[in-house]
Amino acid sequence: MSRTTNTRIVLAARPRGEPVATDFRTEQHPLPSPGPGQVLLRNLWLSLDPYMRGRMNDARSYAPPVALGEVMDGGTVSEVLESAHPDWKPGDLVLAHGGWQTHALADGAQLRRRIDPAGPPPSTALGVYGMPGFTAYAGLREIGRPKPGETVVVAAAAGPVGATVAQIAKLQGARVVAIAGGDAKAAWLREEAGVDVALDHRDPEFAARLQASVPGGIDVYFENVGGHVFDAVMPLLNEHARVPVCGLVAHYNDTAPPPGPDRLPRLMSLVLSRRVTVRGFIQGDFLALYPEFLRQMGAWLGDGSIRYREDVVEGLEQAPQALAGMLRGSNFGKLVVRLC
Amino acid sequence: MSRTTNTRIVLAARPRGEPVATDFRTEQHPLPSPGPGQVLLRNLWLSLDPYMRGRMNDARSYAPPVALGEVMDGGTVSEVLESAHPDWKPGDLVLAHGGWQTHALADGAQLRRRIDPAGPPPSTALGVYGMPGFTAYAGLREIGRPKPGETVVVAAAAGPVGATVAQIAKLQGARVVAIAGGDAKAAWLREEAGVDVALDHRDPEFAARLQASVPGGIDVYFENVGGHVFDAVMPLLNEHARVPVCGLVAHYNDTAPPPGPDRLPRLMSLVLSRRVTVRGFIQGDFLALYPEFLRQMGAWLGDGSIRYREDVVEGLEQAPQALAGMLRGSNFGKLVVRLC
Repeated sequence: MSRTTNTRIVLAARPRGEPVATDFRTEQHPLPSPGPGQVLLRNLWLSLDPYMRGRMNDARSYAPPVALGEVMDGGTVSEVLESAHPDWKPGDLVLAHGGWQTHALADGAQLRRRIDPAGPPPSTALGVYGMPGFTAYAGLREIGRPKPGETVVVAAAAGPVGATVAQIAKLQGARVVAIAGGDAKAAWLREEAGVDVALDHRDPEFAARLQASVPGGIDVYFENVGGHVFDAVMPLLNEHARVPVCGLVAHYNDTAPPPGPDRLPRLMSLVLSRRVTVRGFIQGDFLALYPEFLRQMGAWLGDGSIRYREDVVEGLEQAPQALAGMLRGSNFGKLVVRLC
Repeated sequence: MSRTTNTRIVLAARPRGEPVATDFRTEQHPLPSPGPGQVLLRNLWLSLDPYMRGRMNDARSYAPPVALGEVMDGGTVSEVLESAHPDWKPGDLVLAHGGWQTHALADGAQLRRRIDPAGPPPSTALGVYGMPGFTAYAGLREIGRPKPGETVVVAAAAGPVGATVAQIAKLQGARVVAIAGGDAKAAWLREEAGVDVALDHRDPEFAARLQASVPGGIDVYFENVGGHVFDAVMPLLNEHARVPVCGLVAHYNDTAPPPGPDRLPRLMSLVLSRRVTVRGFIQGDFLALYPEFLRQMGAWLGDGSIRYREDVVEGLEQAPQALAGMLRGSNFGKLVVRLC
């Protein structure tokens, strides 16, 4: 990596369906210098997350879209190279919104947090010890609220949100059924994450196996997938079931509504007859819980109560195809790009 | 009405789609005598409510279905004729679950409440001062939670739940857009219920008019209809909107899922991107609030803050066709059958 050049990937076109190489463009720019209050960052780790697909569309969502020609958005673990802000000095490790680039200028007052080199590995600040882990923590605490003995079903359970949900729910005394794509992920969930049942949603018998796995029905379904997993879950929801919704990765590449039948009346009928709560959220809705999360998750990671996997991709140039793969479920664990 | 015969309407067949005459059968039985702890009731008013359609299906819901050959379920205002229970004496007026019949035996310990002849008119115990009114009260208080200045949209707003929701939301300082079928209902909502805007959902321009009526979007949508009203509402929901769901009358006669496109992914995407809460409930979920409701609603009815309409049908034999009509929206106000 050059010490005088910033390499960055910008959004070149809005994808239709799955993102392809021509939706991105790599650019080289001279390294900028920090103005008053700013810091110059070298990005060490870039997080790839499903929400990024939504930012590539020109549509209203919980955050504005990335503009064409603008650097792709993304959380980073970064090192301070130069600082014109009193709180930061060269060598500091920070959680930043550095984007898809090797370097970034940031407002020193808006850096998200300092990363303690003595704590969990820095890259976890993008996963289990960062936004995805906090999404799991907050969604369970504020919406899912599993009681001991209740059944919690988690989709995309080998991903960083799902795996964390599964393990926190176990720590809270729930019975946990984890759903992932493929045998390897299911085996990891059983053996490492310690769930009660792990199911492969690609199994042709998936819906029947799910039903057999929840003899008492489902009390909490942590939704971050949609698609046929949700179809299988719906009829199994118990009275007063809670469905925190933090992602719908199966639909992010949709270009039009799927064909019928229209399942909306069916969902609403279940919501009514079983008095289900379906609630969308993002972790930013619950920021007051963040310090509590850092303490609690730090302890869980420290004593091995919560385990995690990372899927590490080498080099910024791999980011576009890694993002596309993640939207198809080909990552196994938190997807991060090592930038140097 | 005979003093020695109980006339009752039983479920003769499970309807497919809209209930028809042959789904019901009228029977005559000798009047029973109360056993120990029981009372013999003469039913004066029978409530007809949308939930009854669900009870006619052989499907799991929040209450078991009515069995074939069994008397149709229903709330009544009844007079005690004979009592073998120390709390009740002949002449007492009670809110009961008397069903579609002229007389009923009831367990004196399970009668729902005494009706004060000096309070609001007895028939209101089936409407604004009873289950539908309490549904409105509890759903707004526990799920909708409108803040002053927020926009509340109410479906089926000329019905007993919707009209009460609309007026309570106004009392709480919200801006209220009421949706009903037809000009007469819309006029009543504007002139008597005092809503800000009343719209006729049969208007071909309904969706556009709704959009124009909520320039700031929708914060609370009180759902008891479904169908094309919900379609028009969905894209207008604000971030953190709340959707209490207590009925889906547009779908109760559905016999199969409607044709596509499948709108479920669209709803879930909105739930996620705008962090919407969709929550089904029945008033029985919130019974701890019932005494508070009786006090508060009694005061509102007493000082004219809340108004109501009743649609009175004469004679038990009219109940089947009145129920079918209600499911098409042909009633105007709380539908009650006067039994004598």
